[in-house]
Amino acid sequence: MKLTVIGSTALDSIETPFGKKEEILGGSATYAALSASFFVPVSLISVVGKDFPRKYLNIFKKRNIDIEGLEIKDGRTFRWEARYQYDLSYAETLNTELNVFEGFRPVIPKKIDPKDNLLLANIDPELQSFIFHQIKPFGLVACDTMNLWIEHSKKALLRLLKKVDIFLLNDAEARQLSGEKNLLDAAKFIASRGARMIVIKKGEHGALFFSKGLRFMVPAYLLEKLSDPTGAGDTFAGGMLGYLSRSPKITDRVLRRALVYGSIMASFAVERFSATGLLKTKPEDVEERVKHFEKLTKF
Amino acid sequence: MKLTVIGSTALDSIETPFGKKEEILGGSATYAALSASFFVPVSLISVVGKDFPRKYLNIFKKRNIDIEGLEIKDGRTFRWEARYQYDLSYAETLNTELNVFEGFRPVIPKKIDPKDNLLLANIDPELQSFIFHQIKPFGLVACDTMNLWIEHSKKALLRLLKKVDIFLLNDAEARQLSGEKNLLDAAKFIASRGARMIVIKKGEHGALFFSKGLRFMVPAYLLEKLSDPTGAGDTFAGGMLGYLSRSPKITDRVLRRALVYGSIMASFAVERFSATGLLKTKPEDVEERVKHFEKLTKF
Repeated sequence: MKLTVIGSTALDSIETPFGKKEEILGGSATYAALSASFFVPVSLISVVGKDFPRKYLNIFKKRNIDIEGLEIKDGRTFRWEARYQYDLSYAETLNTELNVFEGFRPVIPKKIDPKDNLLLANIDPELQSFIFHQIKPFGLVACDTMNLWIEHSKKALLRLLKKVDIFLLNDAEARQLSGEKNLLDAAKFIASRGARMIVIKKGEHGALFFSKGLRFMVPAYLLEKLSDPTGAGDTFAGGMLGYLSRSPKITDRVLRRALVYGSIMASFAVERFSATGLLKTKPEDVEERVKHFEKLTKF
Repeated sequence: MKLTVIGSTALDSIETPFGKKEEILGGSATYAALSASFFVPVSLISVVGKDFPRKYLNIFKKRNIDIEGLEIKDGRTFRWEARYQYDLSYAETLNTELNVFEGFRPVIPKKIDPKDNLLLANIDPELQSFIFHQIKPFGLVACDTMNLWIEHSKKALLRLLKKVDIFLLNDAEARQLSGEKNLLDAAKFIASRGARMIVIKKGEHGALFFSKGLRFMVPAYLLEKLSDPTGAGDTFAGGMLGYLSRSPKITDRVLRRALVYGSIMASFAVERFSATGLLKTKPEDVEERVKHFEKLTKF
């Protein structure tokens, strides 16, 4: 099954204790689409400005990502500038320029099949909701978010929960959204608002999965080197949804393995700045790391 | 094989967001010995004052823990007062009274077989080292520690590392001791100082195991309820060493499962204040939770 990814495409300027890079390829949809493209054909729906470098467009094309839904608008591309200290779980935003993202409405190309799966990568929940005015999806709908929207658009986000099958967020966000300290309680709250399946991402500590019939925990892959955590969560979501989209049937076993694949894809992403980690990875590297991960966790 | 546990026995006064209890049974050796007693016969070597409640002595006896090595000295028992905020990974010490612990030298009863395994639960590394003047252990020697000793007795701790087979500490402590941010690098540093096997405990995020031949990760069991994190690390160490002591041969599989058992024992301990969680647990509850844990983590 194909996967449609809707979210942001950005030029990021990132500083971590391991280096500093300017105007590199970023955005939630970028990471998610690149990650998912290891598993299934992906369509990217987003917006960039006329200044968006051609070499970045070529990256999508090289990975066979359909960019018909990537609008190229007059104006400058969305930019995000951030710094991480040694605690890589927290990004300090130094500057945000919405640019062409302001007033953007994601438009789904006619050729997208409503039966395809849909990943609403992290953007304003009002934009994520806009999709449902254009398409009545029959496939899985997954939705990722961030602290900013829980703070400023909580109502829209809670409304959206009723329409999604899989809701992804990190542990701090799960606590923020639910008001619960315990992650099990947080998951129950989120489930009570409509999401059928909930994935709580814990960064370097792995991820948790909750649904009515299944609870599952996966640690994160242990890395020798970590350069830039930007996009780890988006990459996780893309890998998980990519794996699910490749699977003919969503069983418990498939859900468990999808979480593992999400976690492994994220481990490649954070080894280098921007999308370089994903771009240098081959499908056989993914399989090898999944096997190693099995060895690391089996008991 | 039997296990000898050396460490502190204390009267704790603990406040967490879930309650407040005064003068309850505590101490690193208490938690470790109770936890290990689920698996093998345990000898406890520690010190208390004459004020130590008889009901607490009876708890050890009921669990068949040999307390011949528990010295009862003139004076008051070691006391520790602490408070946890919602971040249960950090205990704020409000008061420490060493009392009979001051000047304590652990003495190993003659009947202890040098072939038995030894767990040096968290106390001053100078005291932990003192054991080696009395006994030349032939069994496994495990050693746990805490931030206080890394700060104040780092040299003694590093000397001790050469004599231990298994060294346990938490993630913050591993970073503090090694000066490395990455836990793999921290483990390599600790291994270079002599410890053959290293266990890095990550509280609610599980634990990591490192040796020359084996790397292994285990998440923590997901709890509905958590009352008091005191003693979680000691309980982990006791459960791990208890399991290893019960096993006729230390294989990779046994090491992996020992970590799981350590983690599961800790999950029981933190559900209630003091040792109540462990005391209310039956061996069959442990097996049941291990099985559930397998379901939660298998992929």
